[in-house]
Amino acid sequence: MAFGLASQLGYDRAITVFSPEGKLYQVEYAFEAVKRGWSTIGAKCKEGVVVAASKKKVQTLVDFDKLEKIHFIDDHIVTSFAGLAADGRVLVDVARRAALNYRFLYDEPAPVEYVTKAVSDLKQVYTQHGGVRPFGVSLIIAGVDDEPQVFMTEPSGQYMSYKAVAIGQNHHILMEFLEANYKYDLSLDELVKLVLKAFLQVSESEKDPELYEVAVVPVDTKTARKLTVEEVAKHLEEL
Amino acid sequence: MAFGLASQLGYDRAITVFSPEGKLYQVEYAFEAVKRGWSTIGAKCKEGVVVAASKKKVQTLVDFDKLEKIHFIDDHIVTSFAGLAADGRVLVDVARRAALNYRFLYDEPAPVEYVTKAVSDLKQVYTQHGGVRPFGVSLIIAGVDDEPQVFMTEPSGQYMSYKAVAIGQNHHILMEFLEANYKYDLSLDELVKLVLKAFLQVSESEKDPELYEVAVVPVDTKTARKLTVEEVAKHLEEL
Amino acid sequence: MAFGLASQLGYDRAITVFSPEGKLYQVEYAFEAVKRGWSTIGAKCKEGVVVAASKKKVQTLVDFDKLEKIHFIDDHIVTSFAGLAADGRVLVDVARRAALNYRFLYDEPAPVEYVTKAVSDLKQVYTQHGGVRPFGVSLIIAGVDDEPQVFMTEPSGQYMSYKAVAIGQNHHILMEFLEANYKYDLSLDELVKLVLKAFLQVSESEKDPELYEVAVVPVDTKTARKLTVEEVAKHLEEL
Amino acid sequence: MAFGLASQLGYDRAITVFSPEGKLYQVEYAFEAVKRGWSTIGAKCKEGVVVAASKKKVQTLVDFDKLEKIHFIDDHIVTSFAGLAADGRVLVDVARRAALNYRFLYDEPAPVEYVTKAVSDLKQVYTQHGGVRPFGVSLIIAGVDDEPQVFMTEPSGQYMSYKAVAIGQNHHILMEFLEANYKYDLSLDELVKLVLKAFLQVSESEKDPELYEVAVVPVDTKTARKLTVEEVAKHLEEL
Amino acid sequence: MAFGLASQLGYDRAITVFSPEGKLYQVEYAFEAVKRGWSTIGAKCKEGVVVAASKKKVQTLVDFDKLEKIHFIDDHIVTSFAGLAADGRVLVDVARRAALNYRFLYDEPAPVEYVTKAVSDLKQVYTQHGGVRPFGVSLIIAGVDDEPQVFMTEPSGQYMSYKAVAIGQNHHILMEFLEANYKYDLSLDELVKLVLKAFLQVSESEKDPELYEVAVVPVDTKTARKLTVEEVAKHLEEL
Amino acid sequence: MAFGLASQLGYDRAITVFSPEGKLYQVEYAFEAVKRGWSTIGAKCKEGVVVAASKKKVQTLVDFDKLEKIHFIDDHIVTSFAGLAADGRVLVDVARRAALNYRFLYDEPAPVEYVTKAVSDLKQVYTQHGGVRPFGVSLIIAGVDDEPQVFMTEPSGQYMSYKAVAIGQNHHILMEFLEANYKYDLSLDELVKLVLKAFLQVSESEKDPELYEVAVVPVDTKTARKLTVEEVAKHLEEL
Amino acid sequence: MAFGLASQLGYDRAITVFSPEGKLYQVEYAFEAVKRGWSTIGAKCKEGVVVAASKKKVQTLVDFDKLEKIHFIDDHIVTSFAGLAADGRVLVDVARRAALNYRFLYDEPAPVEYVTKAVSDLKQVYTQHGGVRPFGVSLIIAGVDDEPQVFMTEPSGQYMSYKAVAIGQNHHILMEFLEANYKYDLSLDELVKLVLKAFLQVSESEKDPELYEVAVVPVDTKTARKLTVEEVAKHLEEL
Repeated sequence: MAFGLASQLGYDRAITVFSPEGKLYQVEYAFEAVKRGWSTIGAKCKEGVVVAASKKKVQTLVDFDKLEKIHFIDDHIVTSFAGLAADGRVLVDVARRAALNYRFLYDEPAPVEYVTKAVSDLKQVYTQHGGVRPFGVSLIIAGVDDEPQVFMTEPSGQYMSYKAVAIGQNHHILMEFLEANYKYDLSLDELVKLVLKAFLQVSESEKDPELYEVAVVPVDTKTARKLTVEEVAKHLEEL
Repeated sequence: MAFGLASQLGYDRAITVFSPEGKLYQVEYAFEAVKRGWSTIGAKCKEGVVVAASKKKVQTLVDFDKLEKIHFIDDHIVTSFAGLAADGRVLVDVARRAALNYRFLYDEPAPVEYVTKAVSDLKQVYTQHGGVRPFGVSLIIAGVDDEPQVFMTEPSGQYMSYKAVAIGQNHHILMEFLEANYKYDLSLDELVKLVLKAFLQVSESEKDPELYEVAVVPVDTKTARKLTVEEVAKHLEEL
Repeated sequence: MAFGLASQLGYDRAITVFSPEGKLYQVEYAFEAVKRGWSTIGAKCKEGVVVAASKKKVQTLVDFDKLEKIHFIDDHIVTSFAGLAADGRVLVDVARRAALNYRFLYDEPAPVEYVTKAVSDLKQVYTQHGGVRPFGVSLIIAGVDDEPQVFMTEPSGQYMSYKAVAIGQNHHILMEFLEANYKYDLSLDELVKLVLKAFLQVSESEKDPELYEVAVVPVDTKTARKLTVEEVAKHLEEL
Repeated sequence: MAFGLASQLGYDRAITVFSPEGKLYQVEYAFEAVKRGWSTIGAKCKEGVVVAASKKKVQTLVDFDKLEKIHFIDDHIVTSFAGLAADGRVLVDVARRAALNYRFLYDEPAPVEYVTKAVSDLKQVYTQHGGVRPFGVSLIIAGVDDEPQVFMTEPSGQYMSYKAVAIGQNHHILMEFLEANYKYDLSLDELVKLVLKAFLQVSESEKDPELYEVAVVPVDTKTARKLTVEEVAKHLEEL
Repeated sequence: MAFGLASQLGYDRAITVFSPEGKLYQVEYAFEAVKRGWSTIGAKCKEGVVVAASKKKVQTLVDFDKLEKIHFIDDHIVTSFAGLAADGRVLVDVARRAALNYRFLYDEPAPVEYVTKAVSDLKQVYTQHGGVRPFGVSLIIAGVDDEPQVFMTEPSGQYMSYKAVAIGQNHHILMEFLEANYKYDLSLDELVKLVLKAFLQVSESEKDPELYEVAVVPVDTKTARKLTVEEVAKHLEEL
Repeated sequence: MAFGLASQLGYDRAITVFSPEGKLYQVEYAFEAVKRGWSTIGAKCKEGVVVAASKKKVQTLVDFDKLEKIHFIDDHIVTSFAGLAADGRVLVDVARRAALNYRFLYDEPAPVEYVTKAVSDLKQVYTQHGGVRPFGVSLIIAGVDDEPQVFMTEPSGQYMSYKAVAIGQNHHILMEFLEANYKYDLSLDELVKLVLKAFLQVSESEKDPELYEVAVVPVDTKTARKLTVEEVAKHLEEL
Repeated sequence: MAFGLASQLGYDRAITVFSPEGKLYQVEYAFEAVKRGWSTIGAKCKEGVVVAASKKKVQTLVDFDKLEKIHFIDDHIVTSFAGLAADGRVLVDVARRAALNYRFLYDEPAPVEYVTKAVSDLKQVYTQHGGVRPFGVSLIIAGVDDEPQVFMTEPSGQYMSYKAVAIGQNHHILMEFLEANYKYDLSLDELVKLVLKAFLQVSESEKDPELYEVAVVPVDTKTARKLTVEEVAKHLEEL
């Protein structure tokens, strides 16, 4: 069945309707919002995890310093998303509440997958019940629990564990570069460089450190921190 | 896919339906209501924040003195909106309740972003659940907490921090002027003048002080106040 | 986009749907019900406020004496509406409950704007949530609190303060007359005469005192009262 | 806009949709059910109120004696309706409960308007909220409180006070006769005769006393009672 | 407006939509289900009431003895319905609960009209609120309270008192016979014979006593009982 | 009105819509699911009841021994259904809970009709309220209380008592055979043989005892039990 | 009726609508999602049960080791699903809660069918009520209680007991192989080999042990465990 036909018959206009091929078109359309989001990468190595996001100076009077693309979920977990900004913000809150609840119940840091599953389960609900639309956002949720962890959760509520993953604009180009160059036994510094190098594959990217937001969670501290502009600049120079 | 087609297929007639491009047309249409609203500007400098709104004497018997375009949210926060007036009023109340709750819970003034997020989270809900329409209004929420803050929140529930921002009619012209002339290290008086000068770029504007409502929150007092007509007049003369 | 097209595409058939121009057609259609209502005028001067409504003897056996167009909300506030009669009655009740609650909570008379806002906030809700229609009625709510106050609230939930305002049939003609002749420093008697004179601009009106219902709230007593037929007759004679 | 167009565009198929002219077609259609109802008249004079209904022997085996067209609401209030019989019965119950509640709360008989407003407010709700249809019935509610009272409430929830009013089939003919002959200072007996005479204007009516149900509430007793067939017969003879 | 047009415009596909003529087509369509039901008759005379239903041997292996067409509501009330069998069963339960409640509250047998009204009020609700369909069933509810009573309630929720009434298949033929031959001052035995004779007017009926179910409530005992097959046979013979 | 037209006009696409002929098409369509179900027979005689179902080896790796077509509701009641398997399972649970509740409340075994009515009343609800579909299943509920009982309940919620009844595929052929050969005064063994013989009328059936599941409830024990494969085999041989 | 017609008439676009053939198309469409899922097999023998799933290396940077296709429900029960991943995850949680509740209530391990029924009953609800879509997933739930048990539950909520069953891509090829080669009296090791051999029938499969996830529940331990890569490799070599 051609796309145009599914559309004419209306299989693509409600989250509660399967198409004859067993597809949920509304979930697939939500993915389009993700593909238009700013690109962001998550990756892990033996020494920890890296999450890096590219930013664009589209409006000169936006307070660029305050434009955060990477969000702390807990001491040991960070997230970055691509897609509808307001949807993403809601799910960041969901992730934070999940992490907080876990600490409250078990008195220890939440596993990264626990937080990912909380976000993904809510997403699933929004793909099965009428009167709502799916969340138009994919999130990379990364951190260190017993080991480095990088998860990516899609609008459908599906999530998987990745060694490295890119979402948003140009994610195909970014993924190709990562697939060709990624190794698990990099140092954390090497991984940061690899990720920044990936962004530079995309033609419009520049070596301006202000255009990148980078967070790491090292295995030894299990404490997330964002790199300073100076640190990012140094990494870019050393590429 | 051309606009006309999206419309014919009905992707643009419910908040709970993504178009095949991953767009929420109803949210974009709500933006049109914002664009028709009276223009308003928010800006910050090292000495504080300025919010200024232009008013029009469309009906001569409207009690112009009582026509408020700038609203106090708390001692240290003001807001101004463009779009559907009744929607804006509802969200001003939401902002006030958020600021009040914060004081009640933490016994200190609410951060400006806290209030902005409360308003924006409600807006997001109205873009994802059926049986409602999005709020047809953008708000500039500005004030001083640890530093001067200017946020602008859109019908989608997205918000960002701005150095200076204009919404409503002619916002493109206003933004162009601000982008060309804005500097962060202006004095508060200079910033007021810059903002008033911006309004004068728009052809139909006049130097009548009654046509402008201006509020400032200086960093030293952290207390919002509206300029008197005399003060506005003086600023206009000195341009 | 031409009107006919908006209609064919169905943007005008649900309160929860914005048209591509950012309009809520259902709210605009509700306004049409207001425009067909009997005309009523509210005005204020330094000595108080006047609300005056014209009545028509459409059915001779209607008990004309009992046909009230002006309603007391509290000692110091009156209202008159144009539009769907049953909708107006519901909102008069809302206004009365708001005034009563205020007295109960604060042990003093409600500000006129407080009552107006209560009515307008309910109207806004009926423009944003599905499964209902907007209220097809505009109200003039007038009274004296710290000063004379005249508000007019529209089906959209928007309200403004007016020096003088007319709603219902021929409101354009009435407004034109008021705009040409209104002055704030009239005496209350002069204001009553001005308002009655306005009605006489409309061709079908007559000098029959039974066709006018007039209420005043003087600044000194802050107590609303309706003029007797004799008083209205005297005013009409003196025009 | 022609009727046919409103219909084709669907403005007339939901209570929650205004037509572009600001009309609620569903409420107007409900009126059609009223116009097909059996005719009934309410009238008042200085000595009290009369409610009279005409009945038809459409099915010979209907137990005509038990077919009540006039219902007691309280000692001093009666009602009669035209339109959908089951809808009318529901609203008669609403009226009775309102009268009972009033007695319970204030320990005195309910004003006739109080009861009328209770019925009318419920009607209004059914014209503004989705998922229901308006009540297809108009009621004449008449009685004596401080003075004789006759109200008529429409499907829209609008009600007015009348000197005399007719609803149902041939209501135009009945109203014309009443308008030509009604005087307030009739005796109650004269008013009964006037009302019966009105019915005889309609061609198919006969002087059969069984075809009329007549109730009166005299000012002196404030107690409603139905006339016996003999009384009606005597009145008919004396015409 | 022709039927076909009402149908094409969709006025007949929701209980909450009036047609332009003020009709509720869904209620009228529910009536069609009644007209296809097995015929049943209720009648009263000075000595009591009779309810009689005809049965058909459509499936030979149906346990004909257990196929009840007449249901006891209380000692003194019986009912029989035509239309959708499952709907009828639900309403028989409603009637029984109403009778039981009455006994519980007032410690005496429920008036027949009280029970009829309970059933009819529920029916009315199902004609005014969305998301349901009307009950596709008419019931004859008959019994003896202060006097013999026969009520018939329609899908619309309307009910009336009858001397004699027939519903279901061939109800026009049955009614014609009853209208021609009914007298109130028959003995109960004579009334039973009249009713059985009515059924024999319909061509396919036979003198097989198993094809008739007959219940009586005599005025003296006020206790409903069903006639035995022998009794019915005797009556049939004596015709 | 032809079928195609009802379908084009949409009368058949919601449970809450009567067609102009007073039909509920969705209920009739649910019946189609029943007709495609595996055939099952219920029958009673003076010595008890028999329920027998045919099974097919459609998938060779289905664990045929565990494939139950007959379900125990209580010691003395069994059931078998044709139609949507998951719907049937839900209703078997409903029947069991009804039987359990009855024992709990009255401390004695539930009458077979009590259980049947509970199931049927739930079915009726699903034919009258929107947002659901009817149960696509018919059940034979059989057992012994004061006497042998066999009920069959349809998707509409209608149920009747049968001497013998067949549902599912080929039910017409099975019924014809039963109608021709059934007698109430068979022994239970003879009844089992009659039922098995009925199945053999349908061409594709075989004398393989594994293809039949047979349960009996003898009047003397009032305890349901399933026949062993050996017992079924013996009956088949003796045919 | 051809498929295209059902689709044009809209019978296939809501879970609450039967088609004229008594089909629920939305449930059948959900099945299509299952057929596109990765294939998985469940089988039982006298010594226990085996569940085995094939995995594909579609994205090289997915953390393949963490990609689980087989989930533990309790010590003695495992499950694997084909279809929408997020839906499957939700139902795995449902199964776990059911098993936990059983232990909590009865203090012993839940029967495998008990868990299967809990999952299936929830699925059924999602096929009968509006505003939701069916679960687009089939699950194999296998374990050992009194004996080895393998159940498979479909999107419709129907479930059956199987000796061996395959779902997902190529399920027809897998089933054909199993039907031809399955025997109940295999040892558990032989059964594992049979299942792996089945996967190799599908052309694109390889003898790479990382591509298979295998779990067993032996009758003697009643404790589920997953085979190590080495164990799977050894089995593959021995084929």
